[in-house]
Amino acid sequence: MTFATTVQVRFADVDPAGIVFYPRYFEMLNGAVEDWFAQDLGMDFKQMHLVDHIGVPTVKLEVTFLSPSELGDVLTITIVPEQVGRSSCNFTALFNGDGRDRLRAEVVLVCMDLEVQRSRPWPESVRERMLAALASAY
Amino acid sequence: MTFATTVQVRFADVDPAGIVFYPRYFEMLNGAVEDWFAQDLGMDFKQMHLVDHIGVPTVKLEVTFLSPSELGDVLTITIVPEQVGRSSCNFTALFNGDGRDRLRAEVVLVCMDLEVQRSRPWPESVRERMLAALASAY
Amino acid sequence: MTFATTVQVRFADVDPAGIVFYPRYFEMLNGAVEDWFAQDLGMDFKQMHLVDHIGVPTVKLEVTFLSPSELGDVLTITIVPEQVGRSSCNFTALFNGDGRDRLRAEVVLVCMDLEVQRSRPWPESVRERMLAALASAY
Amino acid sequence: MTFATTVQVRFADVDPAGIVFYPRYFEMLNGAVEDWFAQDLGMDFKQMHLVDHIGVPTVKLEVTFLSPSELGDVLTITIVPEQVGRSSCNFTALFNGDGRDRLRAEVVLVCMDLEVQRSRPWPESVRERMLAALASAY
Repeated sequence: MTFATTVQVRFADVDPAGIVFYPRYFEMLNGAVEDWFAQDLGMDFKQMHLVDHIGVPTVKLEVTFLSPSELGDVLTITIVPEQVGRSSCNFTALFNGDGRDRLRAEVVLVCMDLEVQRSRPWPESVRERMLAALASAY
Repeated sequence: MTFATTVQVRFADVDPAGIVFYPRYFEMLNGAVEDWFAQDLGMDFKQMHLVDHIGVPTVKLEVTFLSPSELGDVLTITIVPEQVGRSSCNFTALFNGDGRDRLRAEVVLVCMDLEVQRSRPWPESVRERMLAALASAY
Repeated sequence: MTFATTVQVRFADVDPAGIVFYPRYFEMLNGAVEDWFAQDLGMDFKQMHLVDHIGVPTVKLEVTFLSPSELGDVLTITIVPEQVGRSSCNFTALFNGDGRDRLRAEVVLVCMDLEVQRSRPWPESVRERMLAALASAY
Repeated sequence: MTFATTVQVRFADVDPAGIVFYPRYFEMLNGAVEDWFAQDLGMDFKQMHLVDHIGVPTVKLEVTFLSPSELGDVLTITIVPEQVGRSSCNFTALFNGDGRDRLRAEVVLVCMDLEVQRSRPWPESVRERMLAALASAY
C-alpha cells in the first residue's frame, strides 16, 4: 500500500513566470513526509522532534522536474519506499496533477538522534511499518 | 456568514524556538484569502491574476500576536469583512486553535489593475458578495 | 544613530504579478532585526536562542505598504527605536529603495525566556544600547 | 574561473532542530544562480524574465547533504559549469562553511522561451561566457 496525499499550489508557491518556484516543491514534499510519518508510520513530527529528539534529515535527493505546475493546480504526492535500512529509508515521491507527472524525487532519509547528532536505528514500530509498506509496494 | 478555513502548522513553518515563525502566518493568511475569493466571492486567483490581470495587494496590516502556535497545531482562520469600498476591502482575520486565539489581523486589500498598476473597482459580482458577507456578519 | 542594512529582492521573493509577495518582506525585516541585534546591540541570534534560550517574538505589527518592489531592487531597511521598556521594544522599520519608500512597519518585540515561555527583562547591556539608540534618534 | 558568492544562514532558514531546513538551501542556490547570471554571464534575472521572457528552470537536481548548517553560519556557494549545451547547462554547486562541505548539488538548467513554454538556445553572449567559465574550470 502506497501513501498518497494532495496539496494545492498556492500564490506563495508561484514565481514571476507563473509556475511553482522549485524550492517550494520541497516544502510540499516535506509536508507529505510529515503526513506519511503521522498517518502511516505512527510517528508524528511534533512528538518526534520536540519530545523524543529524533529527526529525519534528508541526506540525498535526486529530482527530475517533468512538467511545470501552475497556481491552483491540485497535486497528488505518492510516496513509495524502495529500501529500508537500520537507520535509513529510500523512497520515491511522485508529484502528479490532472494525470500529468510533475516531478519525481528519489529521497534518502536518515533517522537521527538530535541530542548527540548521530544516526540511530529507526524505532522498531516505525521500521516494521516501513517494511510492510515496502512489501506491499512490490 | 463568515468564511473559515483550516490550516495545519507544518515543519516548514516552525522556528528554532519550536513555534511558528511569524512571516509564515502571512502565507497562511494569504492562502485563506485565496480560498475566500475562490469559494465565497467567485473569483479564483489563477483566473484573476493570469487571465484578467487583476491583483489584490495588501496595503495595510495591523496584527496582534496573541499566543504562539506549535508544530502540528490545526488553526482555523476566520475572515470577517468590516468595510467594502469601491476598490478596497477591510477585513479582520482571526487565527484560533484548540479554543485559543493565536493572532488577530486587520487587513486592507485593494483591487488592482495589474496592467496599468492602478487601483480599479471590484468586479460587480465580487463586490456584491463582499457586501452580502458584510451584511450577514453584523 | 539609526541602524540600516540593505537587502536585494530575489526571485524567491517575487509573485506572479512581478512584485514582492508581502510575507517575504517580513523575512527581510526579521533578517534586519538579526543584524541590528548582532551588530548594534551585542546579542547574536544563535547565542541568544540556542545557548541563552532567549527569544524576541514580535507581538504587534502595524504595516503600511507604500509602493511595490520588484525583482532586483536593492532595499535599505532602517530601524529606529521608539520606546524601550523593561522587556519590550517598539521600533519603526522603513523600507526604501531608489529614494522611494516601500513600506513602513511599527513593530513591538518582547524579550522572552524560552524555557518558561514568559517575558523577561532585556539583558542589561542590550537595554543600555537600545536606550542609547533611542536617545540618539531624537 | 569559478563563480563564488556567500550567504548567511538566517533565522528564517532554520528548523526546530536548529539546522537549515533543506528547502531553504534551494532558495540560497537560486540566489547564487541569480548572482552568477547577473555578475558573470551578463544576464540579469529581471531583464531576462520580465522583459525578454526567458526563464531558466531547473530540470534536474542531484543533491548530497554532507553536513548540517546552523543559524549564523556564513556559507560560500561555488558554481562550476560541467557541460554547456545549445539550450542547457550542467553545473556543480558546492556549499562550504568554515572549511566544512555542507552540500553538493549537480544541477541542470534549461533556457526557456516563456511565451511559447519551450526550450530555446542560450543567447549567444551568455553561451560564450558559460563556455569560457567551463574552459577555465578545467
